[in-house]
Amino acid sequence: MSDYQILQKERTVLDYDTVALDDRNHALVIIDQTKLPNQIEMLSLTRQEDIREAIYLLKVRGAPAIGVAAAIGVYLAARQIAASCQDYDSFYKAYHEAGNYLNEARPTAVNLSWAIRRMEQIVLQRKNEPVNRIVLALHDEAIAIRDEDIRVCEAIGRNGLALVKPGDGLLTHCNAGQLATVRYGTATAPMYLGHKSGYHFRIFCDETRPLLQGARLTSFELSSAGMDVTVLCDNMVSAAMREGKIQAVFVGCDRVAANGDTANKIGTSMVALAARRYGVPFYVCAPTSTIDMSIETGDGIKIEQRKPEEVTTMWYKEPMVPRTGVKVFNPAFDVTDADLITGIVTEYGVVHAPYKAAFRDIFSRKEGGQI
Amino acid sequence: MSDYQILQKERTVLDYDTVALDDRNHALVIIDQTKLPNQIEMLSLTRQEDIREAIYLLKVRGAPAIGVAAAIGVYLAARQIAASCQDYDSFYKAYHEAGNYLNEARPTAVNLSWAIRRMEQIVLQRKNEPVNRIVLALHDEAIAIRDEDIRVCEAIGRNGLALVKPGDGLLTHCNAGQLATVRYGTATAPMYLGHKSGYHFRIFCDETRPLLQGARLTSFELSSAGMDVTVLCDNMVSAAMREGKIQAVFVGCDRVAANGDTANKIGTSMVALAARRYGVPFYVCAPTSTIDMSIETGDGIKIEQRKPEEVTTMWYKEPMVPRTGVKVFNPAFDVTDADLITGIVTEYGVVHAPYKAAFRDIFSRKEGGQI
Repeated sequence: MSDYQILQKERTVLDYDTVALDDRNHALVIIDQTKLPNQIEMLSLTRQEDIREAIYLLKVRGAPAIGVAAAIGVYLAARQIAASCQDYDSFYKAYHEAGNYLNEARPTAVNLSWAIRRMEQIVLQRKNEPVNRIVLALHDEAIAIRDEDIRVCEAIGRNGLALVKPGDGLLTHCNAGQLATVRYGTATAPMYLGHKSGYHFRIFCDETRPLLQGARLTSFELSSAGMDVTVLCDNMVSAAMREGKIQAVFVGCDRVAANGDTANKIGTSMVALAARRYGVPFYVCAPTSTIDMSIETGDGIKIEQRKPEEVTTMWYKEPMVPRTGVKVFNPAFDVTDADLITGIVTEYGVVHAPYKAAFRDIFSRKEGGQI
Repeated sequence: MSDYQILQKERTVLDYDTVALDDRNHALVIIDQTKLPNQIEMLSLTRQEDIREAIYLLKVRGAPAIGVAAAIGVYLAARQIAASCQDYDSFYKAYHEAGNYLNEARPTAVNLSWAIRRMEQIVLQRKNEPVNRIVLALHDEAIAIRDEDIRVCEAIGRNGLALVKPGDGLLTHCNAGQLATVRYGTATAPMYLGHKSGYHFRIFCDETRPLLQGARLTSFELSSAGMDVTVLCDNMVSAAMREGKIQAVFVGCDRVAANGDTANKIGTSMVALAARRYGVPFYVCAPTSTIDMSIETGDGIKIEQRKPEEVTTMWYKEPMVPRTGVKVFNPAFDVTDADLITGIVTEYGVVHAPYKAAFRDIFSRKEGGQI
């Protein structure tokens, strides 16, 4: 447990991937996001209980990062099980239970169950192979999942970078950053790639109430990478745009409907409204895995309501809303209508309205594997 | 010092004026706003040091409330000075110093210096009267300033109430409430008057980062008056409007330019953008004293930048932004362009675009005294 400033002198968060497999110690290595921005604490996790707890307590968060952590987690479980069990049937039974155990950490996290199912396919497909060979295949599949995530983020970064120019003021909301993926992030990928190439962006991070991911996480990761970072409250976006500080917005997304309507962290649609008012291009960075062609429009996306305490009490020395007699509206996400979106940046290119046809084209390129 | 819930059983904040003169004890009585919403603490202040400190530490805040507190404060000073000094010249000298002393509490608060100047006119006009008579005239002038504030707020309330209907969802930003005035507030005046008449509004209060006046103050005063109150983060306004929860917005203002452009608490313009998107009427409640015909447009209004700590550290158990390497953008106000404003509610009626001509009409009615 070290002080951020001290650690920073030697190496920054970017010297690590957010989620990594330490093959020497057979451990999942993550940065504990609940301690940021006040402490950088790297965790080396080997026990299934600890890995599950890290996911449950949001020490690792962000859909892609959770998926990769889960893949590495079930590989490590398989390795431990194989140490005492070389019979396929009993190996599979124990492995399947380990997967369920991990999956229960966040039952609604889509990438968690997706990664566990994908890893289980490897076991099912290799029924006739020795257990040790299956464990090796699981190792390689976990690494493949990690590498795919890195490749997707890097491609989004390249495609997004082509939309801006050196010196631009770029605004983002919440954390669709490296800390939510393995490397680069999605909304932050153009920033990282531009920074490497000397673009000297001025980055603006909305603090992102109520969970403050922009203030705590995005400003941390981008400033520790050496970028020029300014934090502002969510309600200050139009003031910043009016002053001409912002040349483009990049945000991430939780889910994109077939018509381009985009669900993302609460407040995203208000940024889009300000961007439209001041003529600032508004880009959604969306891995194709988040585009859901089965949902026609944003009206089909269910918006989860979260606990009042996130607004009233969390982070504070004492409650900031009267203890009784006041209700709280606390939706996790909002929907940004497609007409407010300048372009959607995927790993296969930037698409524009009408989105439904553009997405079909993207998916046919994806079939062809032309990332 | 009592717990809010216990006090509430007996009497609510609305049983008091926010700022009052206690003639029996010759004291300024205020509710300590820095303790809200966790404690209701009424302060009875007689010493000039304590009155100045209350203004400096924002125990009393809101332009109209500060003006009335200052008027009562200099009256109390005059009374104390007169006890040992019946000679006009030495009385005036000591009185003038007392006014300067109070004015220094918040040198940029316009209503503070306005009220002190207006009170001093009374002293200057009565050079030939006995000091005791001057003190009585100061008492009456302080009460007149208080009563004018109440009348203005009540008239804004009547005019605003005519714009909405029973059961409406009304949203407000920051605190332009009773706590910022003597009684009723400005943006909240239609809510109080409607509540008295059984309108059963559903009230939505933006928490209003970074100082949280909506969460701490507005939700407190309206819920303690018995209204149905919901707090939401500033970035949730468009989500609430998309769900059809809001039928009208009422906000206060710091200054209105001749063309109707309005400076108000940071975030107001983002509420206006969301309201425009979802077809929700957006009303500015503006006492005519805040309309500044000498400023042509909002571009002429200087926006003060405030301390980074309000965003990074204040209220929190530990800092929520990295301690080093990150800048903060923290403007106190923003400008809402006149074209986003449905109407401006003054004590002389509701005016609509084009505002410059409408304001001239209002000011000629004001000359005629037809409130």
